Amino acid sequence: MPDNRSHVDGARVLADLDALRRIGAYKTGVHKPTFSDPHMQSLQWLAQRLPAAGLAAEIDGIGNVIGTSTKAGPKLLAGSHLESQNYAGWLDGPLGVVYALEAARVINADPDADGSVEVAAWCDEEGHFGSFLGSRSYVGALTEDDIDAARDRSSGRTMRDALREVGLAGRPRAGAERGRHIGYLEAHIEQGQTLEGGGLAIGIVTSIVGIWQYRIIFEGEQNHAGTTRMDVRRDAGLALARFCVAIDDRFPGACGPRTVWTTGRIVLDPGAPSIIPGRAEMLFQMRDDDAAVIDRLEALLRDMAAKASAQGRCTVAVERIRTGAPALMNAAFQQAIEAASVALVGGRSVRMPSGAGHDAQVLASIMPAGMLFVPSIGGVSHHWSENTEDADIVTGAEVFVDTCRRLLAR
Amino acid sequence: MPDNRSHVDGARVLADLDALRRIGAYKTGVHKPTFSDPHMQSLQWLAQRLPAAGLAAEIDGIGNVIGTSTKAGPKLLAGSHLESQNYAGWLDGPLGVVYALEAARVINADPDADGSVEVAAWCDEEGHFGSFLGSRSYVGALTEDDIDAARDRSSGRTMRDALREVGLAGRPRAGAERGRHIGYLEAHIEQGQTLEGGGLAIGIVTSIVGIWQYRIIFEGEQNHAGTTRMDVRRDAGLALARFCVAIDDRFPGACGPRTVWTTGRIVLDPGAPSIIPGRAEMLFQMRDDDAAVIDRLEALLRDMAAKASAQGRCTVAVERIRTGAPALMNAAFQQAIEAASVALVGGRSVRMPSGAGHDAQVLASIMPAGMLFVPSIGGVSHHWSENTEDADIVTGAEVFVDTCRRLLAR
Repeated sequence: MPDNRSHVDGARVLADLDALRRIGAYKTGVHKPTFSDPHMQSLQWLAQRLPAAGLAAEIDGIGNVIGTSTKAGPKLLAGSHLESQNYAGWLDGPLGVVYALEAARVINADPDADGSVEVAAWCDEEGHFGSFLGSRSYVGALTEDDIDAARDRSSGRTMRDALREVGLAGRPRAGAERGRHIGYLEAHIEQGQTLEGGGLAIGIVTSIVGIWQYRIIFEGEQNHAGTTRMDVRRDAGLALARFCVAIDDRFPGACGPRTVWTTGRIVLDPGAPSIIPGRAEMLFQMRDDDAAVIDRLEALLRDMAAKASAQGRCTVAVERIRTGAPALMNAAFQQAIEAASVALVGGRSVRMPSGAGHDAQVLASIMPAGMLFVPSIGGVSHHWSENTEDADIVTGAEVFVDTCRRLLAR
Repeated sequence: MPDNRSHVDGARVLADLDALRRIGAYKTGVHKPTFSDPHMQSLQWLAQRLPAAGLAAEIDGIGNVIGTSTKAGPKLLAGSHLESQNYAGWLDGPLGVVYALEAARVINADPDADGSVEVAAWCDEEGHFGSFLGSRSYVGALTEDDIDAARDRSSGRTMRDALREVGLAGRPRAGAERGRHIGYLEAHIEQGQTLEGGGLAIGIVTSIVGIWQYRIIFEGEQNHAGTTRMDVRRDAGLALARFCVAIDDRFPGACGPRTVWTTGRIVLDPGAPSIIPGRAEMLFQMRDDDAAVIDRLEALLRDMAAKASAQGRCTVAVERIRTGAPALMNAAFQQAIEAASVALVGGRSVRMPSGAGHDAQVLASIMPAGMLFVPSIGGVSHHWSENTEDADIVTGAEVFVDTCRRLLAR
């Protein structure tokens, strides 16, 4: 196996990432909500660079950028996304797109390399308008009705209006062509401290966790906070607090080794200082790569709610509002990443699940998929201070491109 | 002691209350925010009826209606308020105003009765713009700066703008004349079920509780709900839930017999389902008629916060944002109400504190003050379905007027 390190131009990778950072810069990060000017400029930036990588560029009717190759041989799809969370980091998304672009530049122009790398930037991975709208469109899992219903979670602007304003309304949406690709590869910063803490260069993703989400509703009796004695109150807020603590006490005994759960939002109704809340609501989320673990935890949650309703002063109702689907990464893809890591970084890699969602989990529904992580300084994520050492970025690019070669050579 | 029952016109009392209900009616209640059209019409309604009760009417520069008498002899001030909470009940406020009006009609025209009853409707008891602005103005505890700073809690409209729009800007504010009144008497629905549950007709208020309010702030670390392991999280929302439960566990062992405490509002920051809250805040309120009990509970609260900060993963800060002052009702006023109850309802009365705040607590800072309660069906309060049986309303008016006679005859 030849050492392909010389084929990757590390300075070019860093310069591209820096160019994308300058579009919509915020402190050391970026602010590029989906369909904002900086986001659209970033899509144009990519589309303009694809021809030099041997790819015909298209921005489709949902805002995906797709670069397609006419080179003979196997085709590997690679990419990530270009919009950002609000006032967030410069690498979450662009890293994977620039790695894919670099792989296409290195491999597609090389007559000795097998096949080609095709590049994708999926629209709205960060969920300003929905959940993985771009990649779901590509795999055929997004209807016109879904698009009709999508709205910007901040401004309320409809997706239809946004598509019209950025000039994409009426364009066809690109769809996956059955059998065209041997699979999909994506790179991302880790968004955690496993690699940094262990002195490792590469994370080989084994699975992407599923996300299950619940609305838990507590009903008591609204009343006057001055004239209602403590012993007759039915305080929905207090019932909610007790339930949160009960989850924290009971879940560790029933969860899997990597389960996480979070109460991200609490609302007391009516929410006034002098009124006992008659109703309270919490948004509760669980993530795991093992659906059986979640089944067990959901049963526990419902049992706890039933007991609290029967024994306490308020009723507790558990409503599942999002059902997760953990996605396994393809074993051959994991092996290829590991082989590249052995060749290029002395095997300083680790197999690990991804706790965050990525477009790779959507692509995995129609083709083999793989993901690799690079280290993330302090594990900071979804914040403008998110960063990775330049050396780690370049090393990641080398492992990524070598993985592409290995997958195409099989 | 003569039976004064025949002097009160129960049908007139019920007709007056019904007339006030028709101004700004909402279902069986009313919607009369401070300085709304229905509120201003209600003030005019009262001002037009005062002359027939032997009183000169004035609407002053803060929206108080004051009726003054030129009759010789002692003067008793009586009243309540005419604005309502949003979409609330028909009796909270008007009952006390109409009782005062009826007392003035019965006593002021009677040459054999000692002295006179003067009538007040205090503006904004319900706190749309502030805290007891009308009665505080009358007792000299409201500065021009306070008025400059006051805003409608719903719309944000300044009090100055509102006063200008309703035509009260520039009018003088009426102030209490030292030594003019022997004291202040107010009637109100109970807003609880003590009277109804005990088959009682009259509550003799012994004290009005003080309200202490706190902002309790929890600081942890905001992070990704998918990639952050449970064992390294610093979840401010969970710290808040544990603190709420700890209050509920610890306070019963330290509180007084009638202390109440309430968490009316909780906010998690940033409040998104996939983000571990880095900051959380709760509004916490305690009420008691004994400041020493509150001192003890506040010390416990601060001690719990310090221990939680030292031992837990988040810091907890307790900030007092409102300091209460319990008000004792005058003993002679309590005796007069009790004597009237013995004479008219066979002593079916009980001495009790008021858990809700009333203008009487403000008036009590400059003169003897007393309050009586009438039963409230189901204890419903601050809701349009609030109600009291007609017979209980008329009985309350008879006891109220007899109490006025007794106080003026002393």
